[in-house]
Amino acid sequence: MNLEQSFRERVKKIKAYIYVLQVIGWDSNTEAPRNSFKRRGEVLSEISKELFMLQASPEAVKSVNEMYDKIDTFDDHLQREVKKAKKTVDKIVNIPQAEYIEYQKLINDSQIIWEDAKKNNDYDSFKENLRKIFAFNKKFALYYDANANPYDTLLDDYEEGMSQKEYDIFFNTLKSDLVPFVKEVLKADKKDYSKFLNDKFDVKKQELFCDYLTDVLNFNRNSGLMKKSVHPFTWNTSPDDVRFTTKYLENYVLSSIYAAIHELGHATYEQQISTEFDDTLLNGGTSMGIHESQSRFYENIIGRSHEFWEAHLPKFKELFPEQTKNMTVDDMFYAVNQVEASMIRIEADELTYPLHIMLRYDIERMMINGEITVDELPKIWIDKMEEYLGIRPANDSEGVLQDVHWSGGMIGYFPTYALGTAYSAQIYNTMKKELDVERLIKENKISKINEWLKDKLHKYGSSKTPKELLLMITNEDFNPKYYVEYLKEKYTRLYLSK
Amino acid sequence: MNLEQSFRERVKKIKAYIYVLQVIGWDSNTEAPRNSFKRRGEVLSEISKELFMLQASPEAVKSVNEMYDKIDTFDDHLQREVKKAKKTVDKIVNIPQAEYIEYQKLINDSQIIWEDAKKNNDYDSFKENLRKIFAFNKKFALYYDANANPYDTLLDDYEEGMSQKEYDIFFNTLKSDLVPFVKEVLKADKKDYSKFLNDKFDVKKQELFCDYLTDVLNFNRNSGLMKKSVHPFTWNTSPDDVRFTTKYLENYVLSSIYAAIHELGHATYEQQISTEFDDTLLNGGTSMGIHESQSRFYENIIGRSHEFWEAHLPKFKELFPEQTKNMTVDDMFYAVNQVEASMIRIEADELTYPLHIMLRYDIERMMINGEITVDELPKIWIDKMEEYLGIRPANDSEGVLQDVHWSGGMIGYFPTYALGTAYSAQIYNTMKKELDVERLIKENKISKINEWLKDKLHKYGSSKTPKELLLMITNEDFNPKYYVEYLKEKYTRLYLSK
Repeated sequence: MNLEQSFRERVKKIKAYIYVLQVIGWDSNTEAPRNSFKRRGEVLSEISKELFMLQASPEAVKSVNEMYDKIDTFDDHLQREVKKAKKTVDKIVNIPQAEYIEYQKLINDSQIIWEDAKKNNDYDSFKENLRKIFAFNKKFALYYDANANPYDTLLDDYEEGMSQKEYDIFFNTLKSDLVPFVKEVLKADKKDYSKFLNDKFDVKKQELFCDYLTDVLNFNRNSGLMKKSVHPFTWNTSPDDVRFTTKYLENYVLSSIYAAIHELGHATYEQQISTEFDDTLLNGGTSMGIHESQSRFYENIIGRSHEFWEAHLPKFKELFPEQTKNMTVDDMFYAVNQVEASMIRIEADELTYPLHIMLRYDIERMMINGEITVDELPKIWIDKMEEYLGIRPANDSEGVLQDVHWSGGMIGYFPTYALGTAYSAQIYNTMKKELDVERLIKENKISKINEWLKDKLHKYGSSKTPKELLLMITNEDFNPKYYVEYLKEKYTRLYLSK
Repeated sequence: MNLEQSFRERVKKIKAYIYVLQVIGWDSNTEAPRNSFKRRGEVLSEISKELFMLQASPEAVKSVNEMYDKIDTFDDHLQREVKKAKKTVDKIVNIPQAEYIEYQKLINDSQIIWEDAKKNNDYDSFKENLRKIFAFNKKFALYYDANANPYDTLLDDYEEGMSQKEYDIFFNTLKSDLVPFVKEVLKADKKDYSKFLNDKFDVKKQELFCDYLTDVLNFNRNSGLMKKSVHPFTWNTSPDDVRFTTKYLENYVLSSIYAAIHELGHATYEQQISTEFDDTLLNGGTSMGIHESQSRFYENIIGRSHEFWEAHLPKFKELFPEQTKNMTVDDMFYAVNQVEASMIRIEADELTYPLHIMLRYDIERMMINGEITVDELPKIWIDKMEEYLGIRPANDSEGVLQDVHWSGGMIGYFPTYALGTAYSAQIYNTMKKELDVERLIKENKISKINEWLKDKLHKYGSSKTPKELLLMITNEDFNPKYYVEYLKEKYTRLYLSK
């Protein structure tokens, strides 16, 4: 077997192991009974060991390095695959095994410690773990590249090509342009839709409405399915098997609707990737940020538009005649676009959401760069909430303890949420020049929008970097102005133009 | 690592691979989208290859053989594990690889050919595959043991310790004692419950009733779950994760109820096995026959008893007041114990069911022993239906083509269905001496029955042979008289005692 063949064989095997871990993960997150997890953990550790060996055994490392030495002789796709494989290898090989194992255990333990800390509003019990997690992440980043700023390395892990330089420009734009605008909107008079929003909506009928959305948004059910779970997510092994979940709350109907639409954005991206990448390392969406741009595009630009409810309010009213008596499209448009300064990121509206992310970026940056300690975190959090949103969390559970990410070792992930949303505005700006988007939404011709996205973005899978894609689609590099413009235009129209 | 440690390590790994294959199988059989199966097939073949190597590589075979050489030095459990491992190895090693691969392909192809043949009532299109499947099974049996009768080898595969000698005694008892009795019952006057049985029952409410049964039959939902699927089945990876499915038909409410109770029997067995066997080859139920004894015990002896409906008819009437107006426990008891000569095994009632199995045993036996050819099968089937049940199938779809088993290569499996049911009558005979079974069912104290079964049978997993278990529980070897007595007593009371 020549070098390339043996690389292909190994990739095929690696992907088979990832596939089985994914299927088990799907089961764990949607229906596995609680007592199953002990034994499952043992099995997963056996299978993960095999996968680790396939990716990082001396033989595997040698094969990847030999391929890398010859990289110039390969075509574009294989070059990109080899680069990805090389990065995976380089991320692991320099970490001393003992540290790697200690870190895995730390992450494992931190999950429950964080859960308890959040439940009991007890930051101190979690602080030391958090300190270690940041310290390990910094150390591992330096093992990978001793000459780079470690936070830059971490940021690049979650969004290829991004560093503090680019993010600073982005968030500084938000700070200067968006923060004052948000304060203005928050002060404006608004009609109160809380009675409707917190009305009781039968969960079985919510399911019917989410089923309806799944169909009208053109999801291919022969290549996927919708289910429910505690935390909504999208899952995929190939474009032929893409699944997503939503979450039903009897007293907040928008939860299931917007979780479903958000995940449908992720799912549509995955379903529309070319199957030619199935057996390669180039399958799946190319980055967290680009993925989030698709989910946010679906959720906000499509799903929170006036036109969307022009098309779909009739069905909604048919299912919930009592709760929607006398309700107009305008009412629904305002109800789904309520703006409010709130403590919890995942419950934030479209306008205030990026400010929650900005705060987290500031903190991660200072932590990794050694400018603050874990002891100072809670107070900094509270002060920044006041600075950006004008509110002060009453306790750490609704402050620094609210998110799962840091306890899971994910440092550098948060910024992709805001970045992805900003990408979506930039992509939307281009799309509008080529498609009559409003009309397509109003006439329920989402398939035309999906086709455009497939052709410009989805089909490429991970074969292009986020930067390359954005340039190809919009003819320029990432530019935060489209995002700020989009938000200002929409929310001026909603709340400031009277 | 010494011999035993390396055996244990290998077993642990083998079990991890079986576990992931099982999780994927659960997903495939309950919800995977149809387009997912192509890629899934490729992944499964990668993983199966790994599993095959773990079980049958020269190194694995050597390890098992070395353990087998020292078997006398091990404790009972390890002895039994080594014997099982040795049998698995011996089943494979003598088959030339080319033949093994050809057979896998044959089985794979035969599935669809059989489905189409059944749909189109076209036995001829399936005949040649069926001939090859029987031929391969015979050949492989002879590779394993050239001196044994090949059908005996196949029977032992599905039920350890059973051969034609034992089965002949069993089925000859049925032929002489049960066939004339069934004919008598078939002739007796019976009230017609078909209007009730084919009434419309809302599927959502059927689900509620199956949920109710799952709870009253004491299934542990923290260690399992119920779901729906096209073909009901039970699934387990350990006693901490046991799942079962049922099937809902709007116009035949007994389908979901008795499939659920049947699978609950299998599931209860699996949940009550000692977890000490989790990492060994002794986990899970010990044989097809013993497993079927538990499902049939639940389904027929508990679920079709007068006492069961004394306890649970009120709940059923509460869910379906319209369909059950004026219905008495007697009515329900008769409705669930209708006897009828029918063409299809899986729809047969408790009394006529074993005669369907007897017919299949006769045919398998003659086929493997070279007494008949595939050309003669359809006619023999029809003639035997007439002999045993007094009816003649109108075509092969409701005759020789009705079952999936042979197309899947399962020759020797059918007899365990009848055997298991007969085991259950023998076990019941002992149980009645120690427990007031009728009263416990009537007072809904199933947990007492479960405890008895756990203590006498379930907890042992596969650490005992079917033969050993039956002797331990009932103090005698398998004896078909209990089964015939049970059926005669029940159905005389129902239909012949007026």
